[in-house]
Amino acid sequence: MSFQLIFQSKKSQARLGRLKTGHGSLLTPFFMPIATRGVVKGISSTELENLKTKIILANTYHLMVKPGREFLKSIRGLHRFMNWSGPILTDSGGYQVFSLARHNTITNQGVKFKDPKSGTRRFLTPEESIRTQKAIGSDIMIAFDQCTPYSPKKSQVEKAVKHTISWAKRCLAQHKKNKNSQLLFAVGQGDRFLDLRLSCVEELRKMDFDGYCYGGMAPLKTVYTMLEKVLPAYPQNKPRYLMGVGYPDNIVQAVQRGVDMFDCVIPTREGRHGRVFLRDKKKKLGRPGFFQAINLQRAEFLFDKTPLDKNCACPACRNYTRSYLSYLLKIGDYLSPRLLSLHNIKFYLDLMKEIRKNIRAGEL
Amino acid sequence: MSFQLIFQSKKSQARLGRLKTGHGSLLTPFFMPIATRGVVKGISSTELENLKTKIILANTYHLMVKPGREFLKSIRGLHRFMNWSGPILTDSGGYQVFSLARHNTITNQGVKFKDPKSGTRRFLTPEESIRTQKAIGSDIMIAFDQCTPYSPKKSQVEKAVKHTISWAKRCLAQHKKNKNSQLLFAVGQGDRFLDLRLSCVEELRKMDFDGYCYGGMAPLKTVYTMLEKVLPAYPQNKPRYLMGVGYPDNIVQAVQRGVDMFDCVIPTREGRHGRVFLRDKKKKLGRPGFFQAINLQRAEFLFDKTPLDKNCACPACRNYTRSYLSYLLKIGDYLSPRLLSLHNIKFYLDLMKEIRKNIRAGEL
Repeated sequence: MSFQLIFQSKKSQARLGRLKTGHGSLLTPFFMPIATRGVVKGISSTELENLKTKIILANTYHLMVKPGREFLKSIRGLHRFMNWSGPILTDSGGYQVFSLARHNTITNQGVKFKDPKSGTRRFLTPEESIRTQKAIGSDIMIAFDQCTPYSPKKSQVEKAVKHTISWAKRCLAQHKKNKNSQLLFAVGQGDRFLDLRLSCVEELRKMDFDGYCYGGMAPLKTVYTMLEKVLPAYPQNKPRYLMGVGYPDNIVQAVQRGVDMFDCVIPTREGRHGRVFLRDKKKKLGRPGFFQAINLQRAEFLFDKTPLDKNCACPACRNYTRSYLSYLLKIGDYLSPRLLSLHNIKFYLDLMKEIRKNIRAGEL
Repeated sequence: MSFQLIFQSKKSQARLGRLKTGHGSLLTPFFMPIATRGVVKGISSTELENLKTKIILANTYHLMVKPGREFLKSIRGLHRFMNWSGPILTDSGGYQVFSLARHNTITNQGVKFKDPKSGTRRFLTPEESIRTQKAIGSDIMIAFDQCTPYSPKKSQVEKAVKHTISWAKRCLAQHKKNKNSQLLFAVGQGDRFLDLRLSCVEELRKMDFDGYCYGGMAPLKTVYTMLEKVLPAYPQNKPRYLMGVGYPDNIVQAVQRGVDMFDCVIPTREGRHGRVFLRDKKKKLGRPGFFQAINLQRAEFLFDKTPLDKNCACPACRNYTRSYLSYLLKIGDYLSPRLLSLHNIKFYLDLMKEIRKNIRAGEL
């Protein structure tokens, strides 16, 4: 078993666990910074290591388009390519097929679509997705699923759930042809329909996946309610991954409902735009105002000679003032977006550490 | 005396020296990476330190426009602002006044001009330049000079030399009002006219400057010839700084003619565009082909799994392959331009080290 449940909170559904991967083991709950194309934008693998980043997420679809599967095979995987020695999780490419491709045709077999940039026609199947994830050599692969658009009709969701289940089975079969230390997670779909979510999970847990995701797009309030109702149906002894969430408070909320894994573009995207997260230590984790978000583009920060956060150990906080970081944004120098991305990643990593500590102390 | 001549080559005019500044002493000949606006584009002061960068150059004109002199005073200088503990040299702003400003009026008093970006009218005088350089707190200040355009008439150059001499005197007077550990260098002008160059230097060396620059714009062949004829007229016991030069071979050529200090945008600007310098160790320093310049944008490098230079200790060479660096350029990620800038800075620093070693060994 790759996952071990260490501790279950008595106050909530929050839990502590340990996930073993081909590149080391991880304490859950954890957060994954996003390295879509094999790089966290502007950041080197050394910098990620220095922040004590444990795991990153890369994107199967984008890596399949460029540098491509044969190239990834020839360089013996993404770890070597980007010089990253920790675990990597790859999504299945399913989300991008639906969000990026303009013309796609979904059949039982897979998805035919036109790449939005090159115009190349592609046919992505569960087998293709796994083959690409094997070439990438990710430690955690995700089964190819059908993601529905925002607020879909029930009949649409029914079909998507049907495909998601049958494709998950095919992914597992493809994976077993060449089994190694790579883990494979399945994605539970069903949007806001409890019956569909439950029947999807019921089918998926009959198969031997290493973890289970919660997928789809919906307002966070809906997600919270659904997590409360659906996660009890997820296997207790397998990690649960809430895809693409979110702000720090969203993460605390989801942890309390039993989620173990997170990824989100927020820390890096916000950092690139001058927005940083700060922990207000006077407020308990999860309470209103326990974190602040400030925008260093605002003129007042040009005269602020204090560090971003005097308690933070990231390079931005250790070495520079708000004034300098703000000035660099003003003159358009890339050093600041990069330092602010590093700060926000560190904020998220510290947040997860505090969450784990709070769970263990029975406070969450 | 801030400068000490350690060794004079017997084979050429090349010399070794030591320059003491308010932030440590430096072995000459040395090279200064360019931090125009108080940052080497995209690079942190920590990264510069890690490369063992000894001194950087900042731009008086740009820093005067933004963040401005009062701001620089309030933050107690550029060292604190950018968290740089080594020496800083600032140019006088003279070059930018002539290269950037569209409408300028030169009087004996100084230069009236319109800032090309904001449209603000400014009046830059020798006194203003020194006041700004004092607010910046640079270790080496440059006297405000008049730079002539490319291939000027002799009458133009005569006037420029006259201004340069009288402004240098005023800079020195302004500096002495509030003398501290800052050094002040004067700029020798005169373009391609030997008599003007010699008379300019003769006047400047009557005044007590800490070092002497060679300024102006001309083809490098002319510069080499002029250096041979003019540098013997420069004080032997003061450092000589050739402004804005150049490629690695240009630097070796100028060192052999007696230059001690260099700055240039080439390593960082080329790096940002994917072009890197490599030392061919099979060829002696200064011989044809002793360095190579390669362009990582070229398709062939995507498949090149070797490091840029296996003998280089920069983060790009230590951690990544040409393939990854080339791929990052292709997808437009800023990590690669940054790593390649770091590599090129390291190349220039290593070049200067090798030059000093060769001078000492009597080989240059």
